[in-house]
Amino acid sequence: MITHQVTIIPDAIDISVPHGENLLRAVHAAGVHVNSSCGGQGTCGKCRVRILEGSVQGGKTEKLSGDDFAKGYRLACLSTVESNLRLEIPPDSRLHRGVLDRTHAGSPTGRLASARQEDMAGIDLKRPVIEKKFISVDPPTMEDNASDLARTRRALKKQHGLSDIGIDYTVLLKLGRTIRENEWRATVTISNNCSGAICGGTFPHITRIQPGDTTGRHYAIAIDVGTTTVCGELIDLVKGEAIAASSEYNGQIKFGEDVITRMVFAQKKDGLYLLQKSVTDSINAVIDSLLTKADVERADISHLGAAGNTVMTHILLGLDPRYIRSAPYTPTVNEMPPVRAIDVGIGLPGHVRLTVMPLIASYVGGDIVAGVLASGMHRRDATTLFIDIGTNGEIVIGNREWLVTASCSAGPAFEGGGIRHGMRATFGAIEEIRIDPATCKPVVFTIGGERPKGICGSGIINIVAELLEAGLLEPNGRFRTDMTTGRLRQGRDGMEYVLVEAERTGIDGDIVITEVDIDNFMRAKGALYAGYQTLLESVGLSWTALDEVIIAGAFGSYVDIEKSIITGLFPDLPVERFSFIGNSSLEGARLAILSRELMDEAGAIAGKMTNIELSDHTPYMDHYVASLFFPHTETRNFPTVMERFKTMGRSCGNGKGDGT
Amino acid sequence: MITHQVTIIPDAIDISVPHGENLLRAVHAAGVHVNSSCGGQGTCGKCRVRILEGSVQGGKTEKLSGDDFAKGYRLACLSTVESNLRLEIPPDSRLHRGVLDRTHAGSPTGRLASARQEDMAGIDLKRPVIEKKFISVDPPTMEDNASDLARTRRALKKQHGLSDIGIDYTVLLKLGRTIRENEWRATVTISNNCSGAICGGTFPHITRIQPGDTTGRHYAIAIDVGTTTVCGELIDLVKGEAIAASSEYNGQIKFGEDVITRMVFAQKKDGLYLLQKSVTDSINAVIDSLLTKADVERADISHLGAAGNTVMTHILLGLDPRYIRSAPYTPTVNEMPPVRAIDVGIGLPGHVRLTVMPLIASYVGGDIVAGVLASGMHRRDATTLFIDIGTNGEIVIGNREWLVTASCSAGPAFEGGGIRHGMRATFGAIEEIRIDPATCKPVVFTIGGERPKGICGSGIINIVAELLEAGLLEPNGRFRTDMTTGRLRQGRDGMEYVLVEAERTGIDGDIVITEVDIDNFMRAKGALYAGYQTLLESVGLSWTALDEVIIAGAFGSYVDIEKSIITGLFPDLPVERFSFIGNSSLEGARLAILSRELMDEAGAIAGKMTNIELSDHTPYMDHYVASLFFPHTETRNFPTVMERFKTMGRSCGNGKGDGT
Repeated sequence: MITHQVTIIPDAIDISVPHGENLLRAVHAAGVHVNSSCGGQGTCGKCRVRILEGSVQGGKTEKLSGDDFAKGYRLACLSTVESNLRLEIPPDSRLHRGVLDRTHAGSPTGRLASARQEDMAGIDLKRPVIEKKFISVDPPTMEDNASDLARTRRALKKQHGLSDIGIDYTVLLKLGRTIRENEWRATVTISNNCSGAICGGTFPHITRIQPGDTTGRHYAIAIDVGTTTVCGELIDLVKGEAIAASSEYNGQIKFGEDVITRMVFAQKKDGLYLLQKSVTDSINAVIDSLLTKADVERADISHLGAAGNTVMTHILLGLDPRYIRSAPYTPTVNEMPPVRAIDVGIGLPGHVRLTVMPLIASYVGGDIVAGVLASGMHRRDATTLFIDIGTNGEIVIGNREWLVTASCSAGPAFEGGGIRHGMRATFGAIEEIRIDPATCKPVVFTIGGERPKGICGSGIINIVAELLEAGLLEPNGRFRTDMTTGRLRQGRDGMEYVLVEAERTGIDGDIVITEVDIDNFMRAKGALYAGYQTLLESVGLSWTALDEVIIAGAFGSYVDIEKSIITGLFPDLPVERFSFIGNSSLEGARLAILSRELMDEAGAIAGKMTNIELSDHTPYMDHYVASLFFPHTETRNFPTVMERFKTMGRSCGNGKGDGT
Repeated sequence: MITHQVTIIPDAIDISVPHGENLLRAVHAAGVHVNSSCGGQGTCGKCRVRILEGSVQGGKTEKLSGDDFAKGYRLACLSTVESNLRLEIPPDSRLHRGVLDRTHAGSPTGRLASARQEDMAGIDLKRPVIEKKFISVDPPTMEDNASDLARTRRALKKQHGLSDIGIDYTVLLKLGRTIRENEWRATVTISNNCSGAICGGTFPHITRIQPGDTTGRHYAIAIDVGTTTVCGELIDLVKGEAIAASSEYNGQIKFGEDVITRMVFAQKKDGLYLLQKSVTDSINAVIDSLLTKADVERADISHLGAAGNTVMTHILLGLDPRYIRSAPYTPTVNEMPPVRAIDVGIGLPGHVRLTVMPLIASYVGGDIVAGVLASGMHRRDATTLFIDIGTNGEIVIGNREWLVTASCSAGPAFEGGGIRHGMRATFGAIEEIRIDPATCKPVVFTIGGERPKGICGSGIINIVAELLEAGLLEPNGRFRTDMTTGRLRQGRDGMEYVLVEAERTGIDGDIVITEVDIDNFMRAKGALYAGYQTLLESVGLSWTALDEVIIAGAFGSYVDIEKSIITGLFPDLPVERFSFIGNSSLEGARLAILSRELMDEAGAIAGKMTNIELSDHTPYMDHYVASLFFPHTETRNFPTVMERFKTMGRSCGNGKGDGT
């Protein structure tokens, strides 16, 4: 077999690659990250690499300009290795983890809706799903020589009022030795992690025994398994609170950006295994970081509680997501049976149980159940609209009596996908602009204040709203062709607006927003708005019935509510009804770990939530089409926006142009 | 490291052994069986091997005659390898498996007490603990796209009335694929193998799913894990009956003959592991044989049900028996949680559950619970004495209202231990004699009709009874010194009776029974009798209250009841009250597999049986001392024996002797 040496810079990694191997696969196999939103299909153009020495076969595509191609840029997914190579991975093809810290539940901006005091009244956050109990066992005598287990259970009953406690086989293996080790004093860990139908009843059982009193060292880890990011918290179960937070990109990103590409990848040879391993590697990295940050021993972890969407949850557990992907969209399971963390490849001791938040349907998962739990909306009389924005926008409407949910396929626009200069919300992403009403020139603001590299999801909302208010963009999503500002020009995808000129960017060339980009954004926001409308109709309510709107998710936390209303992404309701909840998936996972009552509530939420399938749903399609306008074709539902458009004059530069 | 080549004949096995290695360990490591009742302590003298070439260090002991030593015989356990060797394992140091076939439940002799029709009335033997159910799952539609598991459970409910059925994580991994594989028709295996306190409730759950209808292929294996023998049956769960039987010696024998030596061995380095591996190797061999005999696929096995004494059960499950061994004799656990057969090292597919019969106490185990279940005594008004004779004699007395039990340490006499020419009940063992009243010469009968090699347990009972009736043996266990028959002579252990002269035996030298042998037997039968008496007193009953006596166990099946009564081993009750039940442990295991109701009954038996610890129990010790006489010091309890002794004249040859 002929192999070639490939040197990757700036990593300075040398790898040996068989002749003819796909370059993207080779680089990923070497553990080097290269973005690949489409999963290596050659369609997203994100895996640009630059060949400095040597040559590859292929790699040319319309996603690369002729100029770039001449400079040696290739799409790695379309290239095969034909010689020794010296390869550069440019910054925009890499992940930056610095921004990850923005994604913690602990640091969202805006008004925080989560875990409001009044909702959590009466909930004991020191009654965890997995508990530790210290016991003093009666030593046996000739008159009373019942088995070690019988004595242990007797102590649990007498000293803690716990009866009918089962035991894991593996605990039995050391029971006799352990209860004798510290003069018949021991600590048992009891899992109440399976109640309800999935276990055929309640099933509290001893999952660990330790000599002496270890009740003071009792920790859990909550994980939000996001499609993009894995966020974790270390929870002190004695104090009833989180003591550290950490996150990593979900290692599955290298196989595709969204759940669809992941499911496609799962059908390839070893695909499911690679996906599972990637996410557990990421979870393991988060756990390592949490333990280091808080200086907690791995052995003192008792529980791992995870929340994720249906695809992430299936893959984490090694369940084939094949049937989720196509109609009629059936998950394998919504409520998971007990499993040990180590059984799915997570590096925690054998006694650690993994619980995952129950799922609702193929596109409404445990992250939404956790989110609703954290929001407390299921406990209130007020009717709430809960929105989690992403490639799939999940929506819940309801109150303490009822809950309806749906998932809208918004496409990747909110995550920078399908946008010419779209990018994830990392350093250098434009997240806000202000268009000078006199000159029609924008002032741009980037994450981290770095030179602009592209536009993130919240940036697009702000740009579109600003363009609308400036009158540069028509409600139908077309740029005004009668405006002669130099910023507005004809590009290869039709009209485009120049946000940053080449010499001021952090990339090669201008950063623009095109009519195609705006069209993609319009479809995304329209999909969500049609979703709210369909759900409301399904319960016979109108917009005014919404007492609250809760925006969930890391992305949501950075969204400007007023600008979102202007674009028609959010309903035109008084701003004070809106609130942010940050990473409610992680928060819900934490709450369910801390309180058995809330864990049961999560099951109850899943049990009573009605899912409405929007695909092939005629009223939804009608609403969707009606939404393809800014803010909406039914302007009567956006009175304040219409008013604002009127008063703002809606035109920068008054058509004069500034010649730049 | 210096090593030596050791050639073992007649096996023709060559092994390489480090200089100074213990010879017994080396031979065992090579997979060659050598008897070793005492577990390699040098006290039983059973591991005689003959050095044909080369030399060993040590191996000399009073257990070897000078003559044998000169011929090259050594005790393997006391020898270390010092040179290349050519080694013969003589026949009497080997196991013979031919006789194993006598130990099946299916082939005991005598009146069979087991599973009487009237006791089993109303019990459905086709309602097994682990069941298979064929289901037709509704294919999902856009209107009804509940999860695969929800659809599966809905089918179980609609088609079989089963609700709240849990599922194993491992089954989920292939659920989606399997229910689609044969047009939404599938067979689920449901384990009801954990109900009651150990699981904290009932816990019926799906442990397997197969495409299509496989309900016609549904088998289980019942195993009696005896200290000496592992007996198995293959059970057709559809027919509700056993279809093949097989057995093997328990491979632990090489580490010691009885449970005490096994427990001592378990404390050595790797001892517990080696013991567990030995017994699972034996179980695996039995399973292989059963599958071959019945031409059944391993994949069609659903359940493995085992019964064994407390020590065997603990070792099988890998539980340290350390605390069973010494006062106050506590087992780790009496009721076992669910475990997969493969988790303890048994070569059955991952879906196969291992259930073990519940235990009572350290010396009354699951074999006795199974035996009681099989006997039906717990369902009758009649009061029954249930006796399982072995190194530990386990006794149960009771009826449908109550059950009391005890274990008597009888010593190894019934298994040929502590008897000069004692041997296991294999080919060549003397099992019966008739003493010619004229000549005082015996006619001996051996198992298989082979040349005599020694005396088995049932043989000793018959010999002692015959010697008593012939008047050669006094009720105090001494030979008549005033008799001048040449068969009665002074030996190295005091007086001895020659059963077979050297030239007619299958071994080197005469086969004799000595006063020491008879003393050991007397202690053994006394221990049991004192046990019956103590248990009876504990419930305030007298001998006449015993409506039935059931003799359990492979050994029991070969015992002559009348002769046993003569020696005082059994109470002097009308012979028609006695019956044999054969391997009731295996039968009980089978019944519990076949019927969920009987499995629950086994739990109920264990729950209500009261164990009485006889060690350090003063009344027991008094009864024991009073039993050291033939038939007993309290002769009023043996009226028919006393009558018989009177009428028989009790003297052969009338003191003349025959000169031979």
